[in-house]
Amino acid sequence: MKPVVTITYCPKCGWLLRAAYMAQELLTTFEEDLGGVTLKPAEIAGSYQVFVDDFMLFDRKREGRFPDIKELKQLVRDRVNPGKSLGHSDRKTEG
Amino acid sequence: MKPVVTITYCPKCGWLLRAAYMAQELLTTFEEDLGGVTLKPAEIAGSYQVFVDDFMLFDRKREGRFPDIKELKQLVRDRVNPGKSLGHSDRKTEG
Repeated sequence: MKPVVTITYCPKCGWLLRAAYMAQELLTTFEEDLGGVTLKPAEIAGSYQVFVDDFMLFDRKREGRFPDIKELKQLVRDRVNPGKSLGHSDRKTEG
Repeated sequence: MKPVVTITYCPKCGWLLRAAYMAQELLTTFEEDLGGVTLKPAEIAGSYQVFVDDFMLFDRKREGRFPDIKELKQLVRDRVNPGKSLGHSDRKTEG
């Protein structure tokens, strides 16, 4: 089973579009690596969390911000396919 | 557990955007009814299928076409919340 990314978002906050954008970026970059991306309305206001299977990659409340897309791809890559190059989005020195 | 919709799409066919669009429509209309929508790259070329949990709602190969969004909402509604009105998208006589 390939890993599945879940993006949990606060629907009342209007974050569906952001979550759907990130889902499409991940599915484009990791087309061969992921079993899918699930968009999941959160029960908790202000929640925006990204998981690979059960492992939490990013939590907006913990970080105090949203992930940027380059950072998110690096986090997913490190978890699902560490040898994969992300091309121009890959600047390990920033990690 | 709320039901989860899965949209399986052929990535090589370029159907991610269509699947992501439908996911956003469903999550907007059924915000309270769905546990999430999963976008899943298909292994099989030309595949475009929509499930509610394990139940197949629509299969492009069987139907010979894509679902339109109004039809898809009606199919999802009938499965997850039969009493829900879809407003102007709801013309039962067309079903």
